[in-house]
Amino acid sequence: MLNNVFDYLIKERDTHLQELTEFLSIPSISALPDHKEDVRKAAEWTAKALEKAGAENVNIYDTSRHPVVYGDYIRDESRPTVLIYGHYDVQPADPLELWESAPFDPEIRDEKIFARGASDDKGQVFMHIKAFEALLKVTGNAPVNFKFCIEGEEEIGSPNLPKFAEEHRELLSADAAVISDTSMMEKGRPSICYGLRGLCGLQIDLKGANADLHSGLYGGAVQNPIHALAKIVSSFHDFDGKILVDGFYDQVETLTEQEKEAYDALGLEDDSFKSQAGVKELFGESGYSTVERLWVRPTLEVNGIGGGFQGEGIKTVIPSRASAKITCRLVPNQDPDEIARLLEEHIKKHTPPGVELSVSLFDKGAPYVTPFDHPAIQTAGKAYEKVYGVPAVFTRGGGSIPIVSVFDQLLGLPVVLMGFGLPEENFHAPNEHFHLENFDKGMQTLCHYWADLAEERF
Amino acid sequence: MLNNVFDYLIKERDTHLQELTEFLSIPSISALPDHKEDVRKAAEWTAKALEKAGAENVNIYDTSRHPVVYGDYIRDESRPTVLIYGHYDVQPADPLELWESAPFDPEIRDEKIFARGASDDKGQVFMHIKAFEALLKVTGNAPVNFKFCIEGEEEIGSPNLPKFAEEHRELLSADAAVISDTSMMEKGRPSICYGLRGLCGLQIDLKGANADLHSGLYGGAVQNPIHALAKIVSSFHDFDGKILVDGFYDQVETLTEQEKEAYDALGLEDDSFKSQAGVKELFGESGYSTVERLWVRPTLEVNGIGGGFQGEGIKTVIPSRASAKITCRLVPNQDPDEIARLLEEHIKKHTPPGVELSVSLFDKGAPYVTPFDHPAIQTAGKAYEKVYGVPAVFTRGGGSIPIVSVFDQLLGLPVVLMGFGLPEENFHAPNEHFHLENFDKGMQTLCHYWADLAEERF
Repeated sequence: MLNNVFDYLIKERDTHLQELTEFLSIPSISALPDHKEDVRKAAEWTAKALEKAGAENVNIYDTSRHPVVYGDYIRDESRPTVLIYGHYDVQPADPLELWESAPFDPEIRDEKIFARGASDDKGQVFMHIKAFEALLKVTGNAPVNFKFCIEGEEEIGSPNLPKFAEEHRELLSADAAVISDTSMMEKGRPSICYGLRGLCGLQIDLKGANADLHSGLYGGAVQNPIHALAKIVSSFHDFDGKILVDGFYDQVETLTEQEKEAYDALGLEDDSFKSQAGVKELFGESGYSTVERLWVRPTLEVNGIGGGFQGEGIKTVIPSRASAKITCRLVPNQDPDEIARLLEEHIKKHTPPGVELSVSLFDKGAPYVTPFDHPAIQTAGKAYEKVYGVPAVFTRGGGSIPIVSVFDQLLGLPVVLMGFGLPEENFHAPNEHFHLENFDKGMQTLCHYWADLAEERF
Repeated sequence: MLNNVFDYLIKERDTHLQELTEFLSIPSISALPDHKEDVRKAAEWTAKALEKAGAENVNIYDTSRHPVVYGDYIRDESRPTVLIYGHYDVQPADPLELWESAPFDPEIRDEKIFARGASDDKGQVFMHIKAFEALLKVTGNAPVNFKFCIEGEEEIGSPNLPKFAEEHRELLSADAAVISDTSMMEKGRPSICYGLRGLCGLQIDLKGANADLHSGLYGGAVQNPIHALAKIVSSFHDFDGKILVDGFYDQVETLTEQEKEAYDALGLEDDSFKSQAGVKELFGESGYSTVERLWVRPTLEVNGIGGGFQGEGIKTVIPSRASAKITCRLVPNQDPDEIARLLEEHIKKHTPPGVELSVSLFDKGAPYVTPFDHPAIQTAGKAYEKVYGVPAVFTRGGGSIPIVSVFDQLLGLPVVLMGFGLPEENFHAPNEHFHLENFDKGMQTLCHYWADLAEERF
């Protein structure tokens, strides 16, 4: 039965890639107000694709910023219902000059499709829709019940989805949530992620004089906001990368020996991570392996800094303002609100005289870990093995999908993170791409998963 | 005789202001390659204005970047020859949104003319040309011999003028150089500047990964160039603003008790400086008064910093690059080359692991002090007093005019810094302007100066 579905997917591959190209061409950058209409366009595109695939009750739910797209297919209440979550919004594309082909003009090179959102997350959302469509077209039915919930604010921290979920508990009720927004361990090595880091962050704005000042006429007698900002930023870490914010590590779960051994057994090599990252040397908190630094240790990163003259050449000013954007990746059991509070306190304490400080908080997401013996997770592992020919490994991830803890805590669902991306696919960076091998195998894996899951009761 | 000249200046005032408006409308930003043609346009404008005024041998001398405009008027070799230096280039105008009227669309409000370059230095260059023109038009001659040397690279550190001066020693030979590119002490209080700080600087570029990285997938295991840059910048000063670069202060001339007393006697008040600067509190090296911090102590200022995402909202990246622009104001007897070397050493020593550093040096200028009992300086003081009704004070300045030390060391000229700007006129900042009161009185002062100087022999 499934072989017919797979034949269909092969036959329709070119058409599907054409449709994906169309989806990826929409610059649905949720962070930039100028792209609000594009984000809406991507929502409409998603809704149409769901309808075309055979979903019912398709609706675009407005929020205070970007809409949520919903659609479902419920045939047999006795079978499991899966809630498929994904996002149709993307990260900003700058710096544009580093892209080999334009971010919103998708190009297939070397069996990879290059575009902003190719892997994070339009490509993976598209696979779910097409696997579902193929099952319906070829078999006339789907083995499980589906609910699709595809949002447009993931890249800005999903500010409206918690409220949406709370107001639509019944609509979103299911037996498990399945999310494809993570990476496989490496090419040919499927993995299921059972834990993610959380996120909190803030922006620091410092103001000195009312306007930029001539560094000759005023230099030496007034505070320079860039100097003050550097003092603050420099106070966050010691020279080994350990975070110096008081209380930051207090609630961090200690890694068990068992977990430590399991991670070591994964055989992840620093050299391959280094070449993935494109760095000459690694750097991080001492006493921890790379995988520990990424999965079970929290971080504090300055994502952007700016102040004064950044053009070509010299401009001898003392700038009026300087600012920095900071986000922390959190691990169990750090509380995002508490960490944001500690961070704010630290910043206030370390702000030098002569500048005015203002802090604005970003949206937050809690860290998440799910038991990996849950049938929804184990079945996913078997589905991977059937297609990739090797056992799936169970990992944790360094990234954050704020909504995961909403599904967990608000809707009480086990969450299955079935990622088809690869770590080197430049999520959030220039030349983001998606391997078509995983596009093809991923859809087969999903079909197996739904077929097998139909037999499970949980 | 001079009264007729002054009457003429009053009669022609509107015409002169119209011409000045035309001059200020040319966006001759020497730092920005896109404005190369505008800089050339301003050079041509200057040359035409000199010719119209009655200068001879007017010529635009090309350099490897922006040209030097020359013109002279030599009638009586037995009289002093003054070399008038100024610049027709201006600073960049950003941030544009803080200007009340557009920087290159001059507007007169409240008897001040607002435009980029109004005081620094087009307005003051224009006064020299018009005072000279008025003398010739009304009296048929000028009391002294003139050489005008107006360059287009002052705001980028005058990279080509030293070479130009060296190649044209004979052309530029004179008895004194007169420069109007500084400020009076305050409104109604003329001052002659007898010392300036020098300048040296560099840009730091740090590179981490080859591309921006996802802060979830890589955060914790690679160095963040912004963190590394903050460590470097933070290492430059202690919390009191003292510079921590080894050897930085070694050659700094100690202030004599006599100078200290003279500066105290000027009665400069911190409160008025604070409101000029537009800051709520002052900040600087402890143990020194504000005027000492500005005139006789060196500085190290970060003029710009940038890295990562600076748009609205969040982008959870670890940036690939971060950079900072740094300039130092130098005092006697600091050597710009030596300080740049110390700075580079310090940066190398304080660069954390995990990033690649590159440093590019900016152009330099030596600090300068001239004896203030020179007749060219004393006569200038008396000319001020005749027009402003109060004795001129002798000050030093915090800014840098790199060319001053060229006139001093290369051409062996005493340099008279006769400024007509005011400290609050936003040199290098949004809403730069020039008080028309000083435009009028300044030209009268210059006429007195030339008449009196004709009697001096030196």
